[in-house]
Amino acid sequence: MQKIAIIGLGLIGGSLGLALRQASDGLGTPHYTIAGYDRDPERLNLATQMQAIDQASNQLSPVVRDAPLVILATPALAIRELFIEIAPILEPGTIITDTASTKAAVMRWAQEILPASIHFIGGHPMAGATGSLEMARPDLFQGATYCLVPGATSNESAIALVEKLIRAIGAIPLCIDAVTHDRCVAAISHLPFIASAALVEAVATSPERTLLHQLASSGFRDTTRLAAGDPTMYHDISLTNLEAITSWLDTYIEQLQAIRQMLQAPPMNTNEHLLRFFQQAQQHRTLIIEAKNP
Amino acid sequence: MQKIAIIGLGLIGGSLGLALRQASDGLGTPHYTIAGYDRDPERLNLATQMQAIDQASNQLSPVVRDAPLVILATPALAIRELFIEIAPILEPGTIITDTASTKAAVMRWAQEILPASIHFIGGHPMAGATGSLEMARPDLFQGATYCLVPGATSNESAIALVEKLIRAIGAIPLCIDAVTHDRCVAAISHLPFIASAALVEAVATSPERTLLHQLASSGFRDTTRLAAGDPTMYHDISLTNLEAITSWLDTYIEQLQAIRQMLQAPPMNTNEHLLRFFQQAQQHRTLIIEAKNP
Repeated sequence: MQKIAIIGLGLIGGSLGLALRQASDGLGTPHYTIAGYDRDPERLNLATQMQAIDQASNQLSPVVRDAPLVILATPALAIRELFIEIAPILEPGTIITDTASTKAAVMRWAQEILPASIHFIGGHPMAGATGSLEMARPDLFQGATYCLVPGATSNESAIALVEKLIRAIGAIPLCIDAVTHDRCVAAISHLPFIASAALVEAVATSPERTLLHQLASSGFRDTTRLAAGDPTMYHDISLTNLEAITSWLDTYIEQLQAIRQMLQAPPMNTNEHLLRFFQQAQQHRTLIIEAKNP
Repeated sequence: MQKIAIIGLGLIGGSLGLALRQASDGLGTPHYTIAGYDRDPERLNLATQMQAIDQASNQLSPVVRDAPLVILATPALAIRELFIEIAPILEPGTIITDTASTKAAVMRWAQEILPASIHFIGGHPMAGATGSLEMARPDLFQGATYCLVPGATSNESAIALVEKLIRAIGAIPLCIDAVTHDRCVAAISHLPFIASAALVEAVATSPERTLLHQLASSGFRDTTRLAAGDPTMYHDISLTNLEAITSWLDTYIEQLQAIRQMLQAPPMNTNEHLLRFFQQAQQHRTLIIEAKNP
Protein backbone atom coordinates (compact mmCIF):
# COMPACT_ATOMS: atom_id res chain seq x y z
CA MET A 1 0.00 0.00 0.00
CA GLN A 2 1.45 3.33 -1.11
CA LYS A 3 0.98 6.76 0.39
CA ILE A 4 -0.04 9.76 -1.67
CA ALA A 5 0.15 13.22 -0.07
CA ILE A 6 -2.33 15.88 -1.15
CA ILE A 7 -1.40 19.42 -0.10
CA GLY A 8 -4.41 21.76 -0.19
CA LEU A 9 -7.95 20.44 0.12
CA GLY A 10 -10.14 22.57 -2.10
CA LEU A 11 -12.34 21.32 -4.92
CA ILE A 12 -9.39 19.84 -6.85
CA GLY A 13 -7.48 18.37 -3.89
CA GLY A 14 -10.65 16.87 -2.42
CA SER A 15 -11.80 15.46 -5.75
CA LEU A 16 -8.33 13.96 -6.37
CA GLY A 17 -8.53 12.23 -2.97
CA LEU A 18 -12.01 10.86 -3.70
CA ALA A 19 -11.05 9.79 -7.22
CA LEU A 20 -7.78 8.11 -6.18
CA ARG A 21 -9.51 6.26 -3.32
CA GLN A 22 -12.31 5.16 -5.63
CA ALA A 23 -9.80 4.05 -8.28
CA SER A 24 -8.09 1.82 -5.73
CA ASP A 25 -11.34 0.51 -4.22
CA GLY A 26 -12.38 -0.57 -7.70
CA LEU A 27 -9.55 -3.11 -7.67
CA GLY A 28 -10.86 -4.77 -4.53
CA THR A 29 -8.12 -3.63 -2.17
CA PRO A 30 -7.07 -0.04 -1.53
CA HIS A 31 -3.82 0.65 -3.40
CA TYR A 32 -3.13 4.03 -1.87
CA THR A 33 -3.36 5.73 1.51
CA ILE A 34 -4.22 9.39 1.02
CA ALA A 35 -2.64 11.81 3.49
CA GLY A 36 -4.13 15.31 3.36
CA TYR A 37 -2.68 18.66 4.47
CA ASP A 38 -4.54 21.95 4.77
CA ARG A 39 -3.94 25.04 6.93
CA ASP A 40 -7.66 25.13 7.72
CA PRO A 41 -8.72 22.54 10.39
CA GLU A 42 -12.36 22.71 9.24
CA ARG A 43 -11.41 21.70 5.75
CA LEU A 44 -9.30 18.84 7.16
CA ASN A 45 -12.33 17.63 9.13
CA LEU A 46 -14.64 17.90 6.15
CA ALA A 47 -12.20 16.08 3.86
CA THR A 48 -11.94 13.30 6.45
CA GLN A 49 -15.73 13.08 6.80
CA MET A 50 -16.11 12.98 3.01
CA GLN A 51 -13.52 10.17 2.95
CA ALA A 52 -11.41 12.17 0.53
CA ILE A 53 -8.38 11.49 2.77
CA ASP A 54 -7.30 8.70 5.16
CA GLN A 55 -4.93 10.80 7.28
CA ALA A 56 -5.19 14.49 8.11
CA SER A 57 -2.72 17.05 9.43
CA ASN A 58 -2.22 20.79 9.44
CA GLN A 59 1.55 20.14 9.56
CA LEU A 60 3.35 19.49 6.28
CA SER A 61 6.01 17.16 7.59
CA PRO A 62 3.89 14.12 8.71
CA VAL A 63 1.88 14.33 5.49
CA VAL A 64 4.81 14.59 3.09
CA ARG A 65 7.21 12.22 4.88
CA ASP A 66 7.36 8.70 3.37
CA ALA A 67 5.03 9.69 0.51
CA PRO A 68 6.53 8.58 -2.84
CA LEU A 69 4.07 10.98 -4.53
CA VAL A 70 3.13 14.50 -3.39
CA ILE A 71 0.37 16.46 -5.12
CA LEU A 72 0.22 20.23 -4.56
CA ALA A 73 -3.38 21.34 -5.09
CA THR A 74 -3.12 24.95 -3.88
CA PRO A 75 -3.51 28.28 -5.70
CA ALA A 76 -0.49 28.95 -7.94
CA LEU A 77 1.13 31.68 -5.82
CA ALA A 78 1.30 29.40 -2.75
CA ILE A 79 3.46 26.84 -4.56
CA ARG A 80 6.78 28.66 -4.32
CA GLU A 81 6.60 28.84 -0.49
CA LEU A 82 5.51 25.21 -0.33
CA PHE A 83 8.55 24.13 -2.38
CA ILE A 84 10.79 25.94 0.11
CA GLU A 85 9.05 24.31 3.09
CA ILE A 86 8.98 20.73 1.80
CA ALA A 87 12.37 20.64 0.01
CA PRO A 88 14.28 19.66 3.20
CA ILE A 89 11.74 16.94 4.15
CA LEU A 90 11.59 15.12 0.82
CA GLU A 91 13.25 11.72 0.30
CA PRO A 92 15.41 11.51 -2.86
CA GLY A 93 13.31 10.03 -5.68
CA THR A 94 10.01 11.57 -4.50
CA ILE A 95 7.67 12.48 -7.35
CA ILE A 96 5.94 15.85 -7.04
CA THR A 97 3.19 17.24 -9.21
CA ASP A 98 0.87 20.25 -8.90
CA THR A 99 -2.53 21.24 -10.27
CA ALA A 100 -2.08 24.97 -10.91
CA SER A 101 -3.58 26.49 -14.04
CA THR A 102 -0.31 28.13 -15.10
CA LYS A 103 2.86 26.17 -15.62
CA ALA A 104 5.88 28.30 -16.64
CA ALA A 105 6.27 30.01 -13.24
CA VAL A 106 5.77 26.75 -11.33
CA MET A 107 8.34 24.94 -13.50
CA ARG A 108 10.84 27.76 -12.88
CA TRP A 109 10.30 27.64 -9.10
CA ALA A 110 10.70 23.84 -9.11
CA GLN A 111 14.01 24.10 -10.91
CA GLU A 112 15.26 26.87 -8.60
CA ILE A 113 14.15 25.36 -5.29
CA LEU A 114 13.75 21.58 -5.42
CA PRO A 115 16.82 19.28 -5.14
CA ALA A 116 17.88 17.53 -8.38
CA SER A 117 16.98 14.18 -6.78
CA ILE A 118 13.24 15.11 -6.84
CA HIS A 119 11.14 14.33 -9.92
CA PHE A 120 8.86 17.32 -10.53
CA ILE A 121 6.15 17.04 -13.20
CA GLY A 122 3.83 20.01 -13.67
CA GLY A 123 0.15 19.09 -13.89
CA HIS A 124 -3.08 20.82 -14.82
CA PRO A 125 -6.42 18.98 -14.79
CA MET A 126 -8.79 20.77 -17.21
CA ALA A 127 -11.95 19.84 -15.34
CA GLY A 128 -13.48 23.25 -16.04
CA ALA A 129 -14.84 23.32 -12.50
CA THR A 130 -14.94 26.09 -9.93
CA GLY A 131 -16.05 25.74 -6.33
CA SER A 132 -14.95 24.57 -2.91
CA LEU A 133 -14.33 21.27 -1.11
CA GLU A 134 -18.08 20.80 -0.50
CA MET A 135 -18.50 20.22 -4.24
CA ALA A 136 -15.65 17.71 -4.56
CA ARG A 137 -16.65 14.50 -6.37
CA PRO A 138 -14.77 11.40 -7.54
CA ASP A 139 -15.87 11.76 -11.19
CA LEU A 140 -14.72 15.38 -11.56
CA PHE A 141 -11.88 14.39 -13.92
CA GLN A 142 -13.85 11.86 -15.98
CA GLY A 143 -13.08 12.55 -19.66
CA ALA A 144 -11.10 15.73 -18.88
CA THR A 145 -7.81 16.60 -20.54
CA TYR A 146 -5.03 16.53 -17.90
CA CYS A 147 -1.95 18.50 -19.02
CA LEU A 148 1.46 17.23 -17.94
CA VAL A 149 4.64 19.29 -18.22
CA PRO A 150 7.73 17.13 -17.61
CA GLY A 151 10.42 19.01 -15.71
CA ALA A 152 14.21 19.01 -16.08
CA THR A 153 14.53 16.36 -13.33
CA SER A 154 11.57 14.10 -14.12
CA ASN A 155 12.53 10.69 -15.52
CA GLU A 156 10.51 8.34 -17.72
CA SER A 157 9.26 6.11 -14.92
CA ALA A 158 8.06 9.09 -12.85
CA ILE A 159 6.11 10.42 -15.84
CA ALA A 160 4.69 6.94 -16.51
CA LEU A 161 3.47 6.66 -12.91
CA VAL A 162 1.71 10.04 -12.97
CA GLU A 163 0.14 9.19 -16.34
CA LYS A 164 -1.13 5.89 -14.90
CA LEU A 165 -2.79 7.70 -11.98
CA ILE A 166 -4.37 10.23 -14.34
CA ARG A 167 -5.87 7.42 -16.41
CA ALA A 168 -7.02 5.70 -13.20
CA ILE A 169 -9.15 8.74 -12.29
CA GLY A 170 -10.69 8.81 -15.79
CA ALA A 171 -8.74 11.74 -17.25
CA ILE A 172 -6.70 11.90 -20.47
CA PRO A 173 -3.02 12.87 -20.04
CA LEU A 174 -1.59 15.35 -22.57
CA CYS A 175 2.15 16.12 -22.48
CA ILE A 176 2.84 19.73 -23.40
CA ASP A 177 5.57 22.33 -22.80
CA ALA A 178 4.97 25.06 -20.22
CA VAL A 179 5.02 28.06 -22.58
CA THR A 180 2.59 26.55 -25.09
CA HIS A 181 0.36 25.43 -22.23
CA ASP A 182 0.25 28.89 -20.68
CA ARG A 183 -0.48 30.62 -24.00
CA CYS A 184 -3.29 28.17 -24.84
CA VAL A 185 -5.01 28.17 -21.45
CA ALA A 186 -4.76 31.98 -21.38
CA ALA A 187 -6.99 31.88 -24.48
CA ILE A 188 -9.57 29.25 -23.56
CA SER A 189 -9.63 29.53 -19.78
CA HIS A 190 -8.06 32.72 -18.40
CA LEU A 191 -9.44 35.21 -20.94
CA PRO A 192 -12.95 33.71 -20.47
CA PHE A 193 -12.94 34.20 -16.69
CA ILE A 194 -11.73 37.79 -17.10
CA ALA A 195 -14.36 38.45 -19.81
CA SER A 196 -17.00 36.90 -17.57
CA ALA A 197 -16.06 38.89 -14.45
CA ALA A 198 -15.79 42.12 -16.48
CA LEU A 199 -19.28 41.51 -17.87
CA VAL A 200 -20.71 41.25 -14.36
CA GLU A 201 -18.90 44.41 -13.27
CA ALA A 202 -19.97 46.39 -16.34
CA VAL A 203 -23.61 45.65 -15.57
CA ALA A 204 -23.52 45.59 -11.75
CA THR A 205 -23.04 49.32 -11.29
CA SER A 206 -26.16 50.25 -13.27
CA PRO A 207 -28.77 52.38 -11.44
CA GLU A 208 -31.41 50.01 -12.87
CA ARG A 209 -29.89 46.90 -11.34
CA THR A 210 -33.07 45.69 -9.58
CA LEU A 211 -34.80 45.50 -12.95
CA LEU A 212 -31.69 43.97 -14.53
CA HIS A 213 -31.74 41.19 -11.91
CA GLN A 214 -35.37 40.50 -12.75
CA LEU A 215 -34.67 40.33 -16.48
CA ALA A 216 -31.43 38.32 -16.40
CA SER A 217 -32.04 34.85 -17.83
CA SER A 218 -29.99 31.77 -18.72
CA GLY A 219 -27.94 33.69 -21.31
CA PHE A 220 -26.53 36.01 -18.69
CA ARG A 221 -26.21 33.17 -16.18
CA ASP A 222 -24.07 31.03 -18.49
CA THR A 223 -21.94 33.85 -19.87
CA THR A 224 -21.07 34.94 -16.32
CA ARG A 225 -20.80 31.51 -14.65
CA LEU A 226 -17.00 31.76 -14.42
CA ALA A 227 -17.30 35.05 -12.51
CA ALA A 228 -18.58 32.96 -9.57
CA GLY A 229 -15.21 31.17 -9.34
CA ASP A 230 -12.57 31.57 -6.62
CA PRO A 231 -11.17 35.15 -6.67
CA THR A 232 -7.84 34.09 -5.13
CA MET A 233 -7.34 31.44 -7.79
CA TYR A 234 -8.13 33.95 -10.56
CA HIS A 235 -5.80 36.51 -8.98
CA ASP A 236 -2.95 33.99 -8.75
CA ILE A 237 -3.49 32.70 -12.29
CA SER A 238 -3.49 36.26 -13.65
CA LEU A 239 -0.23 37.17 -11.89
CA THR A 240 1.56 33.98 -12.96
CA ASN A 241 0.48 34.28 -16.61
CA LEU A 242 0.60 38.05 -17.12
CA GLU A 243 2.14 38.18 -20.56
CA ALA A 244 -0.10 35.64 -22.32
CA ILE A 245 -3.26 36.97 -20.67
CA THR A 246 -2.44 40.60 -21.53
CA SER A 247 -1.83 39.64 -25.15
CA TRP A 248 -5.17 37.77 -25.46
CA LEU A 249 -6.96 40.58 -23.61
CA ASP A 250 -5.65 43.03 -26.22
CA THR A 251 -6.93 40.80 -29.02
CA TYR A 252 -10.32 40.61 -27.29
CA ILE A 253 -10.57 44.39 -26.80
CA GLU A 254 -9.63 44.91 -30.48
CA GLN A 255 -12.38 42.48 -31.48
CA LEU A 256 -14.94 44.37 -29.37
CA GLN A 257 -13.81 47.69 -30.81
CA ALA A 258 -14.24 46.28 -34.33
CA ILE A 259 -17.84 45.34 -33.45
CA ARG A 260 -18.42 48.80 -31.99
CA GLN A 261 -17.24 50.20 -35.34
CA MET A 262 -19.72 47.99 -37.22
CA LEU A 263 -22.51 49.33 -35.00
CA GLN A 264 -21.83 52.88 -36.23
CA ALA A 265 -23.27 51.94 -39.64
CA PRO A 266 -26.72 53.27 -40.60
CA PRO A 267 -29.39 51.43 -38.55
CA MET A 268 -32.37 49.40 -39.83
CA ASN A 269 -30.59 48.13 -42.95
CA THR A 270 -28.82 44.83 -43.39
CA ASN A 271 -25.23 45.26 -42.25
CA GLU A 272 -23.25 42.58 -44.07
CA HIS A 273 -20.15 42.95 -41.87
CA LEU A 274 -22.10 42.52 -38.65
CA LEU A 275 -24.11 39.59 -40.02
CA ARG A 276 -20.91 37.87 -41.21
CA PHE A 277 -19.31 38.45 -37.80
CA PHE A 278 -22.14 36.65 -35.98
CA GLN A 279 -22.20 33.88 -38.63
CA GLN A 280 -18.46 33.29 -38.29
CA ALA A 281 -18.62 33.27 -34.50
CA GLN A 282 -21.40 30.67 -34.68
CA GLN A 283 -19.36 28.47 -37.06
CA HIS A 284 -16.12 28.82 -35.09
CA ARG A 285 -17.89 28.05 -31.83
CA THR A 286 -19.36 24.86 -33.33
CA LEU A 287 -15.90 23.85 -34.57
CA ILE A 288 -14.30 24.36 -31.17
CA ILE A 289 -17.00 22.66 -29.11
CA GLU A 290 -17.51 19.76 -31.56
CA ALA A 291 -13.78 19.12 -31.70
CA LYS A 292 -13.98 18.70 -27.94
CA ASN A 293 -17.20 16.66 -27.79
CA PRO A 294 -17.43 14.82 -31.13
CA MET B 1 -62.97 28.03 -30.05
CA GLN B 2 -60.71 31.00 -30.86
CA LYS B 3 -58.06 31.30 -33.52
CA ILE B 4 -54.53 32.49 -32.73
CA ALA B 5 -52.20 33.29 -35.64
CA ILE B 6 -48.46 32.73 -35.21
CA ILE B 7 -46.31 34.41 -37.86
CA GLY B 8 -42.81 32.87 -38.02
CA LEU B 9 -42.18 29.33 -36.83
CA GLY B 10 -38.73 29.31 -35.25
CA LEU B 11 -37.91 28.22 -31.70
CA ILE B 12 -40.16 30.90 -30.16
CA GLY B 13 -43.07 30.64 -32.59
CA GLY B 14 -43.04 26.82 -32.42
CA SER B 15 -42.78 26.78 -28.62
CA LEU B 16 -45.63 29.31 -28.32
CA GLY B 17 -47.77 27.02 -30.50
CA LEU B 18 -46.93 23.96 -28.39
CA ALA B 19 -47.42 25.86 -25.11
CA LEU B 20 -50.74 27.42 -26.13
CA ARG B 21 -52.08 24.09 -27.41
CA GLN B 22 -50.98 22.35 -24.21
CA ALA B 23 -52.51 25.09 -22.08
CA SER B 24 -55.85 24.56 -23.81
CA ASP B 25 -55.61 20.73 -23.77
CA GLY B 26 -55.14 20.95 -20.01
CA LEU B 27 -58.70 22.23 -19.69
CA GLY B 28 -60.15 19.21 -21.42
CA THR B 29 -61.25 20.91 -24.62
CA PRO B 30 -59.01 22.91 -26.95
CA HIS B 31 -59.63 26.63 -26.41
CA TYR B 32 -57.58 27.84 -29.34
CA THR B 33 -56.92 26.87 -32.92
CA ILE B 34 -53.36 27.77 -33.84
CA ALA B 35 -52.81 28.94 -37.42
CA GLY B 36 -49.15 29.13 -38.42
CA TYR B 37 -47.43 31.11 -41.16
CA ASP B 38 -43.87 30.73 -42.38
CA ARG B 39 -42.19 31.49 -45.72
CA ASP B 40 -40.42 28.12 -45.52
CA PRO B 41 -42.68 25.13 -46.46
CA GLU B 42 -40.36 22.71 -44.62
CA ARG B 43 -40.79 24.58 -41.38
CA LEU B 44 -44.57 24.61 -41.92
CA ASN B 45 -44.50 20.82 -42.35
CA LEU B 46 -42.34 20.30 -39.30
CA ALA B 47 -44.50 22.59 -37.13
CA THR B 48 -47.57 20.63 -38.25
CA GLN B 49 -45.89 17.28 -37.52
CA MET B 50 -44.81 18.55 -34.08
CA GLN B 51 -48.44 19.63 -33.49
CA ALA B 52 -47.26 23.15 -32.77
CA ILE B 53 -49.94 24.43 -35.21
CA ASP B 54 -53.38 23.21 -36.35
CA GLN B 55 -53.43 25.05 -39.68
CA ALA B 56 -50.47 25.91 -41.92
CA SER B 57 -49.98 28.34 -44.79
CA ASN B 58 -47.18 30.19 -46.53
CA GLN B 59 -49.67 32.95 -47.29
CA LEU B 60 -50.32 35.59 -44.63
CA SER B 61 -53.94 36.31 -45.46
CA PRO B 62 -55.59 32.93 -44.60
CA VAL B 63 -53.59 32.75 -41.37
CA VAL B 64 -54.27 36.27 -40.11
CA ARG B 65 -57.90 36.56 -41.32
CA ASP B 66 -60.50 35.98 -38.53
CA ALA B 67 -57.75 35.68 -35.87
CA PRO B 68 -58.60 37.91 -32.87
CA LEU B 69 -54.94 37.54 -31.81
CA VAL B 70 -51.87 37.63 -34.08
CA ILE B 71 -48.39 36.86 -32.69
CA LEU B 72 -45.38 37.96 -34.76
CA ALA B 73 -42.48 35.65 -33.86
CA THR B 74 -39.96 36.73 -36.50
CA PRO B 75 -36.56 38.48 -36.24
CA ALA B 76 -37.01 42.16 -35.36
CA LEU B 77 -36.14 43.63 -38.77
CA ALA B 78 -38.88 41.57 -40.51
CA ILE B 79 -41.63 43.13 -38.39
CA ARG B 80 -41.92 46.46 -40.21
CA GLU B 81 -42.63 44.75 -43.58
CA LEU B 82 -45.08 42.38 -41.90
CA PHE B 83 -47.01 45.31 -40.43
CA ILE B 84 -47.32 46.79 -43.94
CA GLU B 85 -48.51 43.46 -45.39
CA ILE B 86 -51.07 42.58 -42.72
CA ALA B 87 -52.43 46.09 -41.98
CA PRO B 88 -55.03 45.93 -44.83
CA ILE B 89 -56.19 42.40 -43.85
CA LEU B 90 -56.76 42.98 -40.12
CA GLU B 91 -60.27 43.27 -38.66
CA PRO B 92 -60.77 46.28 -36.34
CA GLY B 93 -60.19 45.23 -32.74
CA THR B 94 -57.53 42.63 -33.61
CA ILE B 95 -54.86 42.25 -30.91
CA ILE B 96 -51.29 42.01 -32.18
CA THR B 97 -48.19 41.22 -30.20
CA ASP B 98 -44.62 40.36 -31.16
CA THR B 99 -41.69 38.52 -29.53
CA ALA B 100 -38.72 40.61 -30.68
CA SER B 101 -35.90 41.32 -28.23
CA THR B 102 -35.98 45.08 -28.84
CA LYS B 103 -39.09 47.12 -28.36
CA ALA B 104 -38.65 50.85 -29.14
CA ALA B 105 -38.29 50.36 -32.91
CA VAL B 106 -41.19 47.89 -33.07
CA MET B 107 -43.47 50.22 -31.05
CA ARG B 108 -42.61 53.09 -33.43
CA TRP B 109 -43.36 50.98 -36.53
CA ALA B 110 -46.68 49.85 -35.00
CA GLN B 111 -47.74 53.43 -34.40
CA GLU B 112 -46.68 54.53 -37.91
CA ILE B 113 -48.17 51.62 -39.85
CA LEU B 114 -51.04 49.91 -38.02
CA PRO B 115 -54.57 51.42 -38.05
CA ALA B 116 -55.71 52.99 -34.76
CA SER B 117 -58.41 50.29 -34.49
CA ILE B 118 -55.72 47.63 -33.90
CA HIS B 119 -54.47 46.90 -30.36
CA PHE B 120 -50.71 46.45 -30.52
CA ILE B 121 -48.87 45.27 -27.40
CA GLY B 122 -45.13 44.72 -27.66
CA GLY B 123 -43.94 41.42 -26.18
CA HIS B 124 -40.60 39.84 -25.26
CA PRO B 125 -40.40 36.40 -23.67
CA MET B 126 -37.11 36.19 -21.71
CA ALA B 127 -36.71 32.45 -22.16
CA GLY B 128 -32.94 32.80 -22.63
CA ALA B 129 -33.07 30.19 -25.37
CA THR B 130 -31.40 30.08 -28.76
CA GLY B 131 -32.00 27.50 -31.44
CA SER B 132 -34.41 26.49 -34.19
CA LEU B 133 -37.88 24.96 -34.49
CA GLU B 134 -36.50 21.45 -33.88
CA MET B 135 -35.79 22.47 -30.27
CA ALA B 136 -39.24 23.95 -29.63
CA ARG B 137 -40.93 22.70 -26.47
CA PRO B 138 -44.11 23.54 -24.59
CA ASP B 139 -42.33 24.35 -21.31
CA LEU B 140 -39.86 26.84 -22.82
CA PHE B 141 -41.55 29.79 -21.08
CA GLN B 142 -42.09 28.11 -17.70
CA GLY B 143 -41.00 30.56 -14.98
CA ALA B 144 -39.62 33.07 -17.53
CA THR B 145 -40.20 36.81 -17.29
CA TYR B 146 -42.33 37.93 -20.27
CA CYS B 147 -42.02 41.68 -20.91
CA LEU B 148 -45.11 43.53 -22.18
CA VAL B 149 -44.98 47.04 -23.63
CA PRO B 150 -48.50 48.47 -24.00
CA GLY B 151 -48.84 50.60 -27.15
CA ALA B 152 -50.69 53.86 -27.78
CA THR B 153 -53.71 51.94 -29.10
CA SER B 154 -53.84 48.96 -26.72
CA ASN B 155 -56.78 49.04 -24.29
CA GLU B 156 -57.10 47.40 -20.87
CA SER B 157 -58.99 44.33 -22.03
CA ALA B 158 -56.44 43.61 -24.80
CA ILE B 159 -53.60 43.81 -22.26
CA ALA B 160 -55.54 41.59 -19.84
CA LEU B 161 -56.06 38.95 -22.55
CA VAL B 162 -52.37 38.84 -23.49
CA GLU B 163 -51.40 38.65 -19.80
CA LYS B 164 -53.81 35.74 -19.33
CA LEU B 165 -52.21 33.82 -22.22
CA ILE B 166 -48.72 34.53 -20.84
CA ARG B 167 -49.74 33.09 -17.45
CA ALA B 168 -51.35 30.11 -19.22
CA ILE B 169 -47.98 29.16 -20.76
CA GLY B 170 -46.27 29.43 -17.35
CA ALA B 171 -44.50 32.78 -17.84
CA ILE B 172 -44.64 35.88 -15.63
CA PRO B 173 -45.85 39.08 -17.36
CA LEU B 174 -43.92 42.29 -16.59
CA CYS B 175 -45.25 45.62 -17.94
CA ILE B 176 -42.40 47.96 -18.86
CA ASP B 177 -41.84 50.94 -21.17
CA ALA B 178 -39.94 50.41 -24.42
CA VAL B 179 -36.90 52.60 -23.67
CA THR B 180 -36.27 51.10 -20.21
CA HIS B 181 -36.75 47.61 -21.66
CA ASP B 182 -34.24 48.19 -24.45
CA ARG B 183 -31.62 49.66 -22.13
CA CYS B 184 -31.96 46.78 -19.64
CA VAL B 185 -31.93 43.93 -22.16
CA ALA B 186 -28.96 45.56 -23.89
CA ALA B 187 -27.11 45.01 -20.60
CA ILE B 188 -28.17 41.49 -19.63
CA SER B 189 -28.86 39.94 -23.02
CA HIS B 190 -27.39 41.86 -25.97
CA LEU B 191 -24.01 42.76 -24.47
CA PRO B 192 -23.55 39.11 -23.36
CA PHE B 193 -24.11 37.70 -26.86
CA ILE B 194 -21.68 40.25 -28.33
CA ALA B 195 -19.10 39.50 -25.59
CA SER B 196 -19.57 35.78 -26.22
CA ALA B 197 -19.22 35.99 -30.01
CA ALA B 198 -16.20 38.31 -29.69
CA LEU B 199 -14.55 35.81 -27.34
CA VAL B 200 -14.91 33.04 -29.92
CA GLU B 201 -13.53 35.27 -32.67
CA ALA B 202 -10.58 36.46 -30.57
CA VAL B 203 -9.52 32.85 -30.02
CA ALA B 204 -10.60 31.29 -33.33
CA THR B 205 -7.89 32.91 -35.43
CA SER B 206 -5.02 31.54 -33.32
CA PRO B 207 -2.39 29.45 -35.14
CA GLU B 208 -2.64 26.97 -32.23
CA ARG B 209 -6.35 26.39 -32.64
CA THR B 210 -6.16 22.58 -32.84
CA LEU B 211 -4.58 22.52 -29.40
CA LEU B 212 -7.04 25.15 -28.16
CA HIS B 213 -9.94 22.95 -29.24
CA GLN B 214 -8.43 20.05 -27.31
CA LEU B 215 -7.98 22.13 -24.16
CA ALA B 216 -11.33 23.98 -24.20
CA SER B 217 -13.49 22.76 -21.33
CA SER B 218 -16.85 23.65 -19.77
CA GLY B 219 -15.68 27.15 -18.83
CA PHE B 220 -15.13 28.09 -22.47
CA ARG B 221 -18.26 26.20 -23.52
CA ASP B 222 -20.55 28.12 -21.14
CA THR B 223 -18.99 31.53 -21.68
CA THR B 224 -19.42 31.15 -25.46
CA ARG B 225 -22.79 29.35 -25.51
CA LEU B 226 -24.59 32.48 -26.77
CA ALA B 227 -22.21 32.68 -29.76
CA ALA B 228 -24.01 29.59 -31.09
CA GLY B 229 -27.28 31.55 -31.39
CA ASP B 230 -29.00 32.72 -34.60
CA PRO B 231 -26.76 35.27 -36.41
CA THR B 232 -29.74 36.93 -38.14
CA MET B 233 -31.49 37.44 -34.83
CA TYR B 234 -28.34 38.96 -33.29
CA HIS B 235 -27.84 41.17 -36.33
CA ASP B 236 -31.42 42.45 -36.19
CA ILE B 237 -31.30 43.01 -32.43
CA SER B 238 -28.05 44.95 -32.75
CA LEU B 239 -29.42 47.22 -35.47
CA THR B 240 -32.69 47.93 -33.65
CA ASN B 241 -30.97 48.72 -30.34
CA LEU B 242 -27.81 50.47 -31.53
CA GLU B 243 -27.63 53.24 -28.98
CA ALA B 244 -28.11 51.20 -25.80
CA ILE B 245 -25.81 48.40 -27.00
CA THR B 246 -23.05 50.83 -28.00
CA SER B 247 -23.22 52.48 -24.60
CA TRP B 248 -22.96 49.16 -22.70
CA LEU B 249 -20.22 48.00 -25.06
CA ASP B 250 -18.22 51.13 -24.15
CA THR B 251 -18.69 50.40 -20.45
CA TYR B 252 -17.53 46.82 -21.02
CA ILE B 253 -14.44 47.85 -22.99
CA GLU B 254 -13.57 50.38 -20.24
CA GLN B 255 -13.89 47.62 -17.65
CA LEU B 256 -11.55 45.35 -19.65
CA GLN B 257 -9.04 48.17 -20.08
CA ALA B 258 -9.10 48.76 -16.31
CA ILE B 259 -8.24 45.08 -15.78
CA ARG B 260 -5.48 45.31 -18.37
CA GLN B 261 -4.10 48.23 -16.36
CA MET B 262 -4.15 46.15 -13.15
CA LEU B 263 -2.17 43.44 -14.95
CA GLN B 264 0.67 45.89 -15.55
CA ALA B 265 1.50 45.79 -11.83
CA PRO B 266 4.60 43.88 -10.67
CA PRO B 267 3.99 40.14 -11.02
CA MET B 268 4.17 37.44 -8.29
CA ASN B 269 2.99 39.73 -5.48
CA THR B 270 -0.50 40.11 -4.16
CA ASN B 271 -2.27 42.72 -6.23
CA GLU B 272 -5.05 44.10 -4.01
CA HIS B 273 -6.88 45.85 -6.87
CA LEU B 274 -7.05 42.72 -8.97
CA LEU B 275 -8.09 40.53 -6.04
CA ARG B 276 -10.84 43.01 -5.09
CA PHE B 277 -12.02 43.09 -8.70
CA PHE B 278 -12.53 39.30 -8.80
CA GLN B 279 -14.10 39.32 -5.30
CA GLN B 280 -16.58 42.03 -6.30
CA ALA B 281 -17.45 40.27 -9.53
CA GLN B 282 -18.13 37.07 -7.58
CA GLN B 283 -20.38 38.90 -5.09
CA HIS B 284 -22.25 40.86 -7.76
CA ARG B 285 -22.78 37.73 -9.81
CA THR B 286 -24.30 35.94 -6.81
CA LEU B 287 -26.59 38.92 -6.16
CA ILE B 288 -27.82 38.99 -9.75
CA ILE B 289 -28.36 35.26 -10.14
CA GLU B 290 -29.88 34.77 -6.68
CA ALA B 291 -32.27 37.67 -7.20
CA LYS B 292 -33.46 35.76 -10.24
CA ASN B 293 -33.54 32.26 -8.69
CA PRO B 294 -34.05 32.73 -4.94
